[in-house]
Amino acid sequence: MKIDEKYYRTIKAFPGAGSSKNASFWGVEIIDQTKLPHRFELFQLNKLVEMITAIKTMQVRGAPLIGAAAAYGMALAVQENADDGHLAKAAQLLLDSRPTAVNLRWAVNRMLNKLSSLPIESRCKAAWQEAALICDEDVTLNHQIGQHGLGLIQTAASQKQTPTFNILTHCNAGWLATVDWGTALAPIYAAHDAGMNIHVWVDETRPRNQGASLTAWELDKHGVPHTVISDNAGGHLMQHGQVDMVIVGADRVTSTGDVCNKIGTYLKALAAFDNQVPFYAAVPSPTIDWKIQDGLSDIEIEMRDGDEVSYISGLTAQGEIETIRVTPEHSIAINPAFDVTPSKLVTGIITERGVCAANALKSLFKD
Amino acid sequence: MKIDEKYYRTIKAFPGAGSSKNASFWGVEIIDQTKLPHRFELFQLNKLVEMITAIKTMQVRGAPLIGAAAAYGMALAVQENADDGHLAKAAQLLLDSRPTAVNLRWAVNRMLNKLSSLPIESRCKAAWQEAALICDEDVTLNHQIGQHGLGLIQTAASQKQTPTFNILTHCNAGWLATVDWGTALAPIYAAHDAGMNIHVWVDETRPRNQGASLTAWELDKHGVPHTVISDNAGGHLMQHGQVDMVIVGADRVTSTGDVCNKIGTYLKALAAFDNQVPFYAAVPSPTIDWKIQDGLSDIEIEMRDGDEVSYISGLTAQGEIETIRVTPEHSIAINPAFDVTPSKLVTGIITERGVCAANALKSLFKD
Repeated sequence: MKIDEKYYRTIKAFPGAGSSKNASFWGVEIIDQTKLPHRFELFQLNKLVEMITAIKTMQVRGAPLIGAAAAYGMALAVQENADDGHLAKAAQLLLDSRPTAVNLRWAVNRMLNKLSSLPIESRCKAAWQEAALICDEDVTLNHQIGQHGLGLIQTAASQKQTPTFNILTHCNAGWLATVDWGTALAPIYAAHDAGMNIHVWVDETRPRNQGASLTAWELDKHGVPHTVISDNAGGHLMQHGQVDMVIVGADRVTSTGDVCNKIGTYLKALAAFDNQVPFYAAVPSPTIDWKIQDGLSDIEIEMRDGDEVSYISGLTAQGEIETIRVTPEHSIAINPAFDVTPSKLVTGIITERGVCAANALKSLFKD
Repeated sequence: MKIDEKYYRTIKAFPGAGSSKNASFWGVEIIDQTKLPHRFELFQLNKLVEMITAIKTMQVRGAPLIGAAAAYGMALAVQENADDGHLAKAAQLLLDSRPTAVNLRWAVNRMLNKLSSLPIESRCKAAWQEAALICDEDVTLNHQIGQHGLGLIQTAASQKQTPTFNILTHCNAGWLATVDWGTALAPIYAAHDAGMNIHVWVDETRPRNQGASLTAWELDKHGVPHTVISDNAGGHLMQHGQVDMVIVGADRVTSTGDVCNKIGTYLKALAAFDNQVPFYAAVPSPTIDWKIQDGLSDIEIEMRDGDEVSYISGLTAQGEIETIRVTPEHSIAINPAFDVTPSKLVTGIITERGVCAANALKSLFKD
């Protein structure tokens, strides 16, 4: 999408990286998302270890983008050493960097399968090509999700008396969470670009504030009307008819339609269900984990550092980025990063193949 | 309760206030709660207008404490001018300072009724006496709530296999929200003091972080084991059996048992209901609004400044209190401060007269 009229993707490869200035040595450029919304900075990576750090520290985040980043991580690894042992080690390091997002595993396995079938001398070029293909496919999938979601929004809006259609979203499942377009925000961009009167309630999404910092930022850059709310406010807005639809992304969806997404998603799904507000997850197929049925018992929930709750970063009046502590000196915090919304609370899943009931994913992807 | 072994109430009157040093001129001393948890500072008020500012800026907050503060606000007003016109004006200014908490209206009306029946020359002394009486009564009510809640906790804990009893609370309904003991935390202090193995999940409670800043601070000062969590995390913890009971306070409860409390309470009630976790509101009778039946349609929800979402204050590494912006420059925020939990989601109400079903308040207070 565009930032100040210039087109960007969240991740791209470029030749002549590092100090070598050798055109056959490639690097990866990302948007450093830990600096948003206060600074827009690009960041260049030349080594696998740098990509692992970027994933762990959430310079890149969002399930689809983590997948793309992991694919490029494998390409960086191959560039260092293309033998089987090094690839296996690189794959394990990447798999361990974030446990919850299934796209990471999907992308690493796809790269491993592709590369291990090739002679060592062909692997480097093939790795960069395959990673680029994964990125291009992500853009296509998300664009298709946007079009299917647009149809849903148009139908729902046509049954409404008031002009503005209000969509609530949690965390960031926008273009910053993918290579482009986003998942949950793809239908929103499609509807806005189609001239619809869309307004987005942006959940702040504590503790890392991806809603307030990333979703609000990218909606602002694209010109989509939006309002930031505390994570606590969505239920109240739904009780008072101010939310027409909820659309969230997902880090993993089970074959039975349980949706694992950013912590707090479950609470919004409960409120949507209680107030008859349709609740959708927008999910490209690499996010579906066909191997598991029970999201609550079978998905490992990443426990991140409690300091992400105790400390918050932002911009001072002097324009400096400052980190402050918001909890008492002796109080500890814990930080489960995701929760699971049972499929019974999910109105439907928006995929690249269309929209289906949460428990009907298999019918949509039977081939 | 105690802070570093010294006993405090959240509010008290003292003679010889202001520059007069006249023992017949009284002032009010409060804990400045906007400075917690990083600074413990007492603050002295000599005029009605200062009390109104203290209520509006939340130097004093919490429904019962707002009631006590309003009573002392009336006493300060009488000290300035005891005639009927000034009292009526003072009452209206206080009523307008925070619209949602019913205790404020209750306390102001009680003071007005008491004072208007007296000759003007008797009003000043009577006002200070009546405000002190309201404070003492609050302490008694909360202590009784603590004892009734203790019984509930003991019964629930006796049916549990594991040693620790985990209680989740939202916002601050501790002693800082009252004159002493607290409402939601009164049963917790009672259980802890009785030697039970209690652990408290403390919801951060965005946007003003009263959980992370006030509840965590007072639990720490009293030595009650606790862990701060983001507001998003409670549902996940309930899904995994890590919450045995939810106890919250309230700013207003309808005669039918709808609970108006800090924004986000409704979401926790939904999660508790979905996971069969008992959900209680601890409510002294001045918090019950006998005049209304439907909390969702009949309670005015205070809309506070959106900057409370966009800006957060905390302690820098250098030990300075700093305010930072966490949202993009051009994004706006809205800030509904309360929501209403329908009585169908409330397991019971803990009052000074005992515990009852949410829809049975009238039977408990029939006389």
